[in-house]
Amino acid sequence: MAQPPASAEMRAARELVDVEMAARIRQEAFQRSRVMETLTRLTEDIGPRLTNSPAMSRANQWTMRQLRDWGLSNVHLDEVAGLGRGWEFSGVKVEMLSPRRLPLHALPKAWTPGTPGTVEGEAMALKLEKTADLEKYKGQLRGRILFLSDAREYKPGTEPDFHRHDEAGLAELQRFAIPKDRPAPDRAAEVKRFRERAEFSRALNRFLVEEGVLATVSISGWDNGIIRVGGGGSRKAGEPVGVPDLVMIAEHYNPVMRALERKEKVRLRLAVDARFTDTDDRSGYNTIAELPGGGRREEIVMLGAHLDSWHTGTGAADNAAGVAVMMEAIRILKAVGAQPRRTIRLGLWTGEEQGLLGSSDYVARHFARRPEPADPAEQALPASLRAPTGPLARTRDHGRLSAYFNMDNGSGRIRGIYAQENLAAMPIFEAWLKPFNDVGASVVVSRNTGSTDHIPFDRVGLPGFQFVQDRLDYFTNVHHSHLDTYDHVQPEDLKQAAAVIAFFAWQAANREEKLPRKLFVDEAAKP
Amino acid sequence: MAQPPASAEMRAARELVDVEMAARIRQEAFQRSRVMETLTRLTEDIGPRLTNSPAMSRANQWTMRQLRDWGLSNVHLDEVAGLGRGWEFSGVKVEMLSPRRLPLHALPKAWTPGTPGTVEGEAMALKLEKTADLEKYKGQLRGRILFLSDAREYKPGTEPDFHRHDEAGLAELQRFAIPKDRPAPDRAAEVKRFRERAEFSRALNRFLVEEGVLATVSISGWDNGIIRVGGGGSRKAGEPVGVPDLVMIAEHYNPVMRALERKEKVRLRLAVDARFTDTDDRSGYNTIAELPGGGRREEIVMLGAHLDSWHTGTGAADNAAGVAVMMEAIRILKAVGAQPRRTIRLGLWTGEEQGLLGSSDYVARHFARRPEPADPAEQALPASLRAPTGPLARTRDHGRLSAYFNMDNGSGRIRGIYAQENLAAMPIFEAWLKPFNDVGASVVVSRNTGSTDHIPFDRVGLPGFQFVQDRLDYFTNVHHSHLDTYDHVQPEDLKQAAAVIAFFAWQAANREEKLPRKLFVDEAAKP
Repeated sequence: MAQPPASAEMRAARELVDVEMAARIRQEAFQRSRVMETLTRLTEDIGPRLTNSPAMSRANQWTMRQLRDWGLSNVHLDEVAGLGRGWEFSGVKVEMLSPRRLPLHALPKAWTPGTPGTVEGEAMALKLEKTADLEKYKGQLRGRILFLSDAREYKPGTEPDFHRHDEAGLAELQRFAIPKDRPAPDRAAEVKRFRERAEFSRALNRFLVEEGVLATVSISGWDNGIIRVGGGGSRKAGEPVGVPDLVMIAEHYNPVMRALERKEKVRLRLAVDARFTDTDDRSGYNTIAELPGGGRREEIVMLGAHLDSWHTGTGAADNAAGVAVMMEAIRILKAVGAQPRRTIRLGLWTGEEQGLLGSSDYVARHFARRPEPADPAEQALPASLRAPTGPLARTRDHGRLSAYFNMDNGSGRIRGIYAQENLAAMPIFEAWLKPFNDVGASVVVSRNTGSTDHIPFDRVGLPGFQFVQDRLDYFTNVHHSHLDTYDHVQPEDLKQAAAVIAFFAWQAANREEKLPRKLFVDEAAKP
Repeated sequence: MAQPPASAEMRAARELVDVEMAARIRQEAFQRSRVMETLTRLTEDIGPRLTNSPAMSRANQWTMRQLRDWGLSNVHLDEVAGLGRGWEFSGVKVEMLSPRRLPLHALPKAWTPGTPGTVEGEAMALKLEKTADLEKYKGQLRGRILFLSDAREYKPGTEPDFHRHDEAGLAELQRFAIPKDRPAPDRAAEVKRFRERAEFSRALNRFLVEEGVLATVSISGWDNGIIRVGGGGSRKAGEPVGVPDLVMIAEHYNPVMRALERKEKVRLRLAVDARFTDTDDRSGYNTIAELPGGGRREEIVMLGAHLDSWHTGTGAADNAAGVAVMMEAIRILKAVGAQPRRTIRLGLWTGEEQGLLGSSDYVARHFARRPEPADPAEQALPASLRAPTGPLARTRDHGRLSAYFNMDNGSGRIRGIYAQENLAAMPIFEAWLKPFNDVGASVVVSRNTGSTDHIPFDRVGLPGFQFVQDRLDYFTNVHHSHLDTYDHVQPEDLKQAAAVIAFFAWQAANREEKLPRKLFVDEAAKP
């Protein structure tokens, strides 16, 4: 079994742990929790919070109001320019009319148009994956409903759909996989592929409209009647959005494909009540709040989670859970009268599901950014594909941020933290977790984890962290699915997570030094 | 571990096993299978086959035609009187309008009325479980949509949703649990309870209509977006059918209940396209076919499975799977040129889901029945609650039936057979299973299994059997749910089951003696 690095014992011995504050935090978190109330507001009152949708605006407003009510400072909305148009949907009905009547279960992709009332058409299975496909079918698709995915065989489950880490699983997480040598990425080829894909997507969307296609349908990625769906069309004003685009449960998609295979005529009726809520691109907003520091108020500890969600469930585990926990953590600190030395700042991000947009923009404006490319073609690329533009320009706050802690792996209990290869932070975290060993939080693992809002911090050399959480049914039932709802969230787990994170924030805000940083090499800054 | 009774070896030694025929059957079943074609017709062409629905009539007609096409004899529909009215549904749309827009997933109970187009009303949570409840709410429910179940907490899964027996599981099945002493059932009390329940159900349905309730809703019995639903209202002409009655996924039901708990106004819009297809009660039909016997053609071996199903999936595992396997078994025998000594008869039953009605009626008319009660009040009771009316009257065929084999535990592979305490049959079955040990069929277990169409045979002293099957996802995803569809059926398992059952039919039809019977004591015939 992996062991922490040799220096751990020595460093841990020096880490002061405020067990009295830990006890006060636990009591507030466990006995007087408001976390499920917050979750209820976000999921069952406001509902799903698609980036730039009216509900996301309501979520920004409500979180701002609530954080002010709790007595936090500097509560405001932080503008993120150019997130595109808003979109929402309120109803959908899909029926097979022939060869027999059958109600079908399908939901729309975000940022795709609704139908003009109820429409009827014949289903047709085909692949539209390259320009030649569009030429091949030109003039043949008017009034058709296109089934674009392959049918897929049912895949029997081999594991329970609900998972908590056991000791062996936690031990396994402590192994670090030494990276294999890989050829340097061929940026030119990647940029070419990206542009071809984007161009084809625009051409396809234009083609579908020009050809008078009624709608497109694809199969849900999961079995058992679960609809897993993200975005389609386009959220950018002026870009072609295509036609109504649905994702259907496998149990209804496959029979349509089989009927078409048998050359039967499959007639469908559909009504999709969905709409863009803006004509032009507009800004989105991060909700920001602070618990002001004392003696070191210029220095910052940040907590964050993304407030936006997908649209078919209520974005409960992804990520009202993270938002509710982070809000609760800062509420707890306020409620127990915590007066931190450093300022504790909360960021509730927008646009995470579209590529960490809210947090990336915030980091660029507040901590560090590279020069913008002059070439508009380069500007149009995602940051990860752009040619190097020059060294990182850091703000003064870059030096003042002690750490950023994020939560976005569902509603599962915190079992520990990913140290993100910051070995010097490991013994510190181990010490901070001690008061929570008895509620399941114990491991500090050296490995990296990605895919969410701590990454923009990590990318500019700031200590950004995510927690190890129990998986629950996040990747079996709820992630980006219509079942991502309140009932799949575990209340006790959220209470535990809020307590752990409140204490992490407290410790980070009060320890003598800021958190140690790992080595950061800015290739562009080399002479 | 349990051992077969001591005489098993001796008896088994005498059992002749026609391995040549087993090989021919396997080849036809595995290489030239038609079983999935049959399943396709039943599930994807005909669709769900609710008792007495138009689709069930189509299923009767199609099975009759298909069995004739395969060259079977005496193919006909066997009338079962008084099964009530037909019903079908073709679409449903449920939306929450306030406090926020949300499409809700719900499906109607069978034999409940549709809505007159689209209706809107306010949700209200209440319990209507006894006459006092009806009095309490009189005059307060006009235009309301009643939520009648409690909310229910999500129950995390602890086992994989797909299950095959392992050796330990099969060994466990071989244990027989000696029945505990139980007090004799108090028939008078049971009859009283039954009548009170039936009377309350009629009163409730009348009340809902009189009070102008728009619809009733209850929570699905399973989590994870699965809708599990049977019948409501009434299938009997002249009985009150109540108002539209829906079952909703837990993930949508619970939020409505929580909103009502918070005193929020929940407004819903619904459209249920459902209808009774008959005004009066009418007969249903079992499909019957025979492979005529030779030297002992007056003696019978029966195969059976129920053709009817519930209405929200396509009745694939329950029980198009059993029907397709039984049809395939008899097709295989015909195809390999089998000329059995005894007649092999197939029964595809109606009304199983309403209480084994088709098979019970068939057994009463062909094999054995008790006198009908003279008292109309007794006639109205289910057979199990009636006072003894006198000894069993057996037909000549009662003595001529060797055995009845049934399949109705989903689409899982046959792992063996329940001997139903017929110990003398056990070594015989063990011998018959030998040629299928290599495809997983091996155990003969002494225990009883119930709940389906072999029971009417067993109840009158006839050897009626069901097979031990792999459970697959029958009791986790598909049983009586909207996911009981083609994709959840395992094709290789159906091929295996058809081969095993064809061979059982062959062996039973050709062995020197009919199958031994267990002791049957007719209490009513005692002096």
